[in-house]
Amino acid sequence: MPDRQVVILGAGFGGLYAALHLERALRRERSTRIVLLDKGNYHLFLPMLHEITSGGVEPRHVVRPLRPLFRKTRVDFRRAEVRSIDLEGRRILTDQGEVGYDYLVIALGSTTNFFSVDGAAETAFTLKSLKDAVGLRNHLLEMFERADLERDPDRRRRLLTFCLVGAGCTGVELATELQDLIQKTLLRNYPHLDGREVRLVLPEASGRIVPCVSSRLAWLGLDKLRRKGIEVRLHAPVIAVSEGAVTLADGKVVPTETVVWTAGVKANPIVEGLPVEKDELGRVIVDEYLELPQFPGAFALGDCAHCSDPRLQAPLPPTAQVAVQQARAVADTIAKALRGQAKRPFVYRHQGDLVSLGSGDGVGEIGGVAFSGLPAWLLWRAVFLGKLIGWKNRVRVALDWIVGAFFERDISKLEW
Amino acid sequence: MPDRQVVILGAGFGGLYAALHLERALRRERSTRIVLLDKGNYHLFLPMLHEITSGGVEPRHVVRPLRPLFRKTRVDFRRAEVRSIDLEGRRILTDQGEVGYDYLVIALGSTTNFFSVDGAAETAFTLKSLKDAVGLRNHLLEMFERADLERDPDRRRRLLTFCLVGAGCTGVELATELQDLIQKTLLRNYPHLDGREVRLVLPEASGRIVPCVSSRLAWLGLDKLRRKGIEVRLHAPVIAVSEGAVTLADGKVVPTETVVWTAGVKANPIVEGLPVEKDELGRVIVDEYLELPQFPGAFALGDCAHCSDPRLQAPLPPTAQVAVQQARAVADTIAKALRGQAKRPFVYRHQGDLVSLGSGDGVGEIGGVAFSGLPAWLLWRAVFLGKLIGWKNRVRVALDWIVGAFFERDISKLEW
Repeated sequence: MPDRQVVILGAGFGGLYAALHLERALRRERSTRIVLLDKGNYHLFLPMLHEITSGGVEPRHVVRPLRPLFRKTRVDFRRAEVRSIDLEGRRILTDQGEVGYDYLVIALGSTTNFFSVDGAAETAFTLKSLKDAVGLRNHLLEMFERADLERDPDRRRRLLTFCLVGAGCTGVELATELQDLIQKTLLRNYPHLDGREVRLVLPEASGRIVPCVSSRLAWLGLDKLRRKGIEVRLHAPVIAVSEGAVTLADGKVVPTETVVWTAGVKANPIVEGLPVEKDELGRVIVDEYLELPQFPGAFALGDCAHCSDPRLQAPLPPTAQVAVQQARAVADTIAKALRGQAKRPFVYRHQGDLVSLGSGDGVGEIGGVAFSGLPAWLLWRAVFLGKLIGWKNRVRVALDWIVGAFFERDISKLEW
Repeated sequence: MPDRQVVILGAGFGGLYAALHLERALRRERSTRIVLLDKGNYHLFLPMLHEITSGGVEPRHVVRPLRPLFRKTRVDFRRAEVRSIDLEGRRILTDQGEVGYDYLVIALGSTTNFFSVDGAAETAFTLKSLKDAVGLRNHLLEMFERADLERDPDRRRRLLTFCLVGAGCTGVELATELQDLIQKTLLRNYPHLDGREVRLVLPEASGRIVPCVSSRLAWLGLDKLRRKGIEVRLHAPVIAVSEGAVTLADGKVVPTETVVWTAGVKANPIVEGLPVEKDELGRVIVDEYLELPQFPGAFALGDCAHCSDPRLQAPLPPTAQVAVQQARAVADTIAKALRGQAKRPFVYRHQGDLVSLGSGDGVGEIGGVAFSGLPAWLLWRAVFLGKLIGWKNRVRVALDWIVGAFFERDISKLEW
């Protein structure tokens, strides 16, 4: 039997879990090689990125180096940046040369969707990588340092206004973490600053927040956000972003030096460029096996695939739990194909949702049971701690949280 | 009684301890203001910088934010970069305007001394700041990633050769930490690489290593370094550094992409520019009260002062323990001057030395008793843990060490 090669692009939730499941599923097919490509040498646990920005968790504790994870396996990890995918020729072009494949898993994730809003891409911060999270933290601390020296009240208020565009999960979790950091730590340590000059503005284009959870929980969450002093504005699409201001559709202008774009995602440009059918977000449309209809053996999953859920009559959302379930299904399908067995269609099973709303608060629903307040927050911590990859990171994040419960947060602006 | 102002420049060991002691000594003189200036908003615990590079300790855990430290005191911390010191006019020029003073403490520390070696300042890494430590770590991991892909054996060996210039405390502690990281973690995770291709070269201009400890301990340390596989070269001054190579005085060339300059320090350029008597390292020559002879009320300490020790017949070394003792003496002298009391000359009391030589090993001498191996290493950890400022950092560094004892070190190259 000739050697066959499965190539997985990307080591996010989709790619990493696909590699881990394939490794397990192909334990007997020794002749099949698994190659995993990523431009970094680690897997980043995105659901805790907002805690990096607030300083609750150390950056390195949400990062899992890939080489030790695959050291004793047949998975061949290569740090390489994908340049393009040649579906006809069954090969991947990378900055480190070409890689041929028999089976392909496209799990390149998404990039920020600025919806062509004027100035957004040039001016706004995003929250998609560790660098984003660390950079945003430093910027926030710099704004407080500058405001402390600023005599002009208008300029000081602009320095102390923080605008997060889009009240999805990312926007809401980041906003509440930042509000905690500002109210509980920063204002205590900048006694010259008046807390009433600080604003956290959260404009949202649609009529509700956190689309991932049920409508009832979203309203409960909205109430909690407003009681924390976060200015949530519904039906308020942003139409322009510039250095120093955000303009809303109703003509209102928010003067600010800090715009964080948390309004949505679209497919990775490499995926967007594939010569296959795609949706309006550039995601490739896959069949019920997560396979590209014209290119058997090539699969796409996670944020870069448009996979419709027959029950929802809508595409599955770009979340980690979707990517992880799809990864398992794709691994299973590839293993079956290698053995000549019949494949099974992918069925998504929604496990629930949890949204953290700052220290001691949250909303969520698991298995049809709704939680809010402290129980939701504790559940959030328990669930996401368990989902971290590797015991070292679990121990370290738990210790960060325990230390954080006893001591004040750090406010050093570290230049790197 | 008119208000008087004491201005302290720099929040390193000298400046921070001067501020803390002055605050305590002047508890009754409410009318005296204390102003502390630093270009960052934190104090950095330099003795653990090599552990940031090796990944043993988190960067933020060796950093103490200054504002919370002085929140309830009269010390007015201002984040400002000192541009120049006007000793005649008794004022400091900063990027945030002018600050006048009645008493001045110059504690601006040192910069790297490249001894005018060709190409060193342009090419070599230094280890003086958190940014340096994080940058060097990322570079080191990048060298392994690149070597893993390199087919040409000469180029691969050059990528895997690391040259640390100068076998003082910094060079030796860094070299042993890196050797641990390379031998115990990196080589296990890059199975394509041959350990025999990795070189750690430590050229030293003088005839011995670690000048801070006694000659007997230095020879013991040298033996330990060599047994760990570190190529220490004595009487081997570096005469040129270029991209890709280090040239020694005997004409030998070490092909390498990584040169770390740990060969010595000189005074901060602002101090070097002062119109007073200085030594060959640009440090101001102070009298027995650590005062500038021509400018009463202006004091200098730590790495930017040349303070001769009558017993040693030599200037005191640029170490943290010298700076901390001097800080206490200066605070005492200023407090006495404010009360009209007679001042007392500064006497340095050497407390001992400890050099860590990687995990489980070290050499040191405290109160005349010499230690080596595990006892010296444990003592190093106990002493430096105790010297960290604030319980939060003590707890976090101790936890980093405990976690580090159970799990493998991280090898993720984090881009920030």
